[in-house]
Amino acid sequence: MKRRSTIKDIAEKLNIAPSTVSRAISGKKGVSEKLKKIILETAEDLKYIPNISAKSLKTNRTNTIGLIIPDIDNPFFLDVIKGVEKVLFPRGYKFIVCSTDENLEKERTYLDWLLENGVEGIIASPVQEGEGRSNMKSYKSILKRRIPLVFYDRLIRNLTEIDSVTVNNETAVMEALFNLKNAGHKKVGICLSKKGLYTMEERLKGFKKGVEALELETRPEWLLNDMHPLEKAEEKLEKFIATGDFPDGIITANHPITAILLKNTRRFGRKIPDDFSLIAFDDLLENELMSPAITTIKQPVMEIGKMAATLLLGRIDDESTPPVKVVLNCQLVHRESLRKQ
Amino acid sequence: MKRRSTIKDIAEKLNIAPSTVSRAISGKKGVSEKLKKIILETAEDLKYIPNISAKSLKTNRTNTIGLIIPDIDNPFFLDVIKGVEKVLFPRGYKFIVCSTDENLEKERTYLDWLLENGVEGIIASPVQEGEGRSNMKSYKSILKRRIPLVFYDRLIRNLTEIDSVTVNNETAVMEALFNLKNAGHKKVGICLSKKGLYTMEERLKGFKKGVEALELETRPEWLLNDMHPLEKAEEKLEKFIATGDFPDGIITANHPITAILLKNTRRFGRKIPDDFSLIAFDDLLENELMSPAITTIKQPVMEIGKMAATLLLGRIDDESTPPVKVVLNCQLVHRESLRKQ
Repeated sequence: MKRRSTIKDIAEKLNIAPSTVSRAISGKKGVSEKLKKIILETAEDLKYIPNISAKSLKTNRTNTIGLIIPDIDNPFFLDVIKGVEKVLFPRGYKFIVCSTDENLEKERTYLDWLLENGVEGIIASPVQEGEGRSNMKSYKSILKRRIPLVFYDRLIRNLTEIDSVTVNNETAVMEALFNLKNAGHKKVGICLSKKGLYTMEERLKGFKKGVEALELETRPEWLLNDMHPLEKAEEKLEKFIATGDFPDGIITANHPITAILLKNTRRFGRKIPDDFSLIAFDDLLENELMSPAITTIKQPVMEIGKMAATLLLGRIDDESTPPVKVVLNCQLVHRESLRKQ
Repeated sequence: MKRRSTIKDIAEKLNIAPSTVSRAISGKKGVSEKLKKIILETAEDLKYIPNISAKSLKTNRTNTIGLIIPDIDNPFFLDVIKGVEKVLFPRGYKFIVCSTDENLEKERTYLDWLLENGVEGIIASPVQEGEGRSNMKSYKSILKRRIPLVFYDRLIRNLTEIDSVTVNNETAVMEALFNLKNAGHKKVGICLSKKGLYTMEERLKGFKKGVEALELETRPEWLLNDMHPLEKAEEKLEKFIATGDFPDGIITANHPITAILLKNTRRFGRKIPDDFSLIAFDDLLENELMSPAITTIKQPVMEIGKMAATLLLGRIDDESTPPVKVVLNCQLVHRESLRKQ
């Protein structure tokens, strides 16, 4: 078995004092952000595993974070978990996974729990319903108690003073529309999941703006909304595919919906991209293996998780800095489901 | 908003005393296993959400479980998380996800952590290396401290006195071979992931037994072993597909390996089932969407998670019962990647 790397190894490699490394790793002040970044990267390279238990015993802190996952059926969130863990583990934090199933009451129960069990921070993609309903009160009481909070993927519009990591949903959809137009398509549609979700509202906004700006055509029947839970998506997409009244190009807003659309496309003998072109949100290895391979809008999912955890740890270290709003870029990955012009 | 279901609602529906419902839900003695099951199912039907925080404050228990996930890249474990959560949440337990990345040291760090932070039980799929190496000492010290422990998916052979949930790996592979033979195939191969894993050793055992019993033919080059991490699988499978020296039928032992095999099959212009038939472990919606749709060995993954959590809660309620070894059945799901005779 290889010898376990120590703080001394990291210090030697960087030619700095072990005490500096220790300060950076335990999140204490007195180390510049730049040096801290280098130290943490070196720690990762050397596969440094901190002696966390000893640390937690000494400081009497819980070193525990709550991670709110609204839809564990969506592989997007699995990659978020991976990203979060990559940042938290080397810094000695563990996390409680709170799977809220898009249920406001379940989320409220979990938030109460986390508060009463002394978590040091919360990373949340909040549950949202139509008409802007969310657990605003619970989130406000978290802030009141000065428990660090970071939103990822979704924002609650009235809670502006919170660190967040999102992607540029609007632009991503507009870029997809631009590519559909370039492929010679005029008629377009979009399949969205749950009404009220920040991400879905932003994507719909981008869709409407793009349709207008690019002079494309759409119809209410091509705008499939409110497809949550998945049984509802199944029902709506089955009808949609069965009618045969398709636009030329369709955008799907997450992987579970894409999978259900493809299943029904297959079932009713429709062909992609002959019957319609498809651009799907979220890039998984599976998209590459389909026939045709699916053109996707790739969200930097692992980065979202890593960035959310980084912001939270920053906030735990220093609660006085102003809120940071990180917006990451998506990227179109060209494959075969978009018709070639 | 709908009114939240209460213990009284459950009691009324079943026509029993609210105190009985309360005892069943909080895991106290005095309710038969059969009645408890009915009560918990009714609680689930009525979407009952316990007022956990109040409960935890009163009893001063952590109500926290550690869940050891060895390979978060494998969607198998996401479904396990879902199953575990389905059982733990209604009973008022939360869980810490410990992603060990198949790394003994990382697992040891997490186990130390869990112990020192007062978890009430641990559900683990242990990290295993070749020559039977595992964190035996850590697991033994968990048992010594009388912290309830349940193994799922993998067993450590020398630790026999532990509740566990596994599947009949050996039989599942033998059944797959039987189906390959029925399709007229004589030459067979298998792709396994990491050396030393209980599951892989059992599947290899089933493969060898099946080959002998069914008078099939195999070769060392068709027995791809030790494909962890995925970069190693990528390298080995690329070579394997590039040579063109295939058996007639191949079994893959998990979804990530199946995906890499399919990617290379596509890349080198090979055809399934023309060049070889494929039966893959683990059944995902994606397997249905491939061309050809993939014939799979379906593990009851959600059930594994639910059963592991159920066993653990049972053990927390009553530590005196003898260890329970649950072995669940797999099921062959016929699709198009197995050649028709």
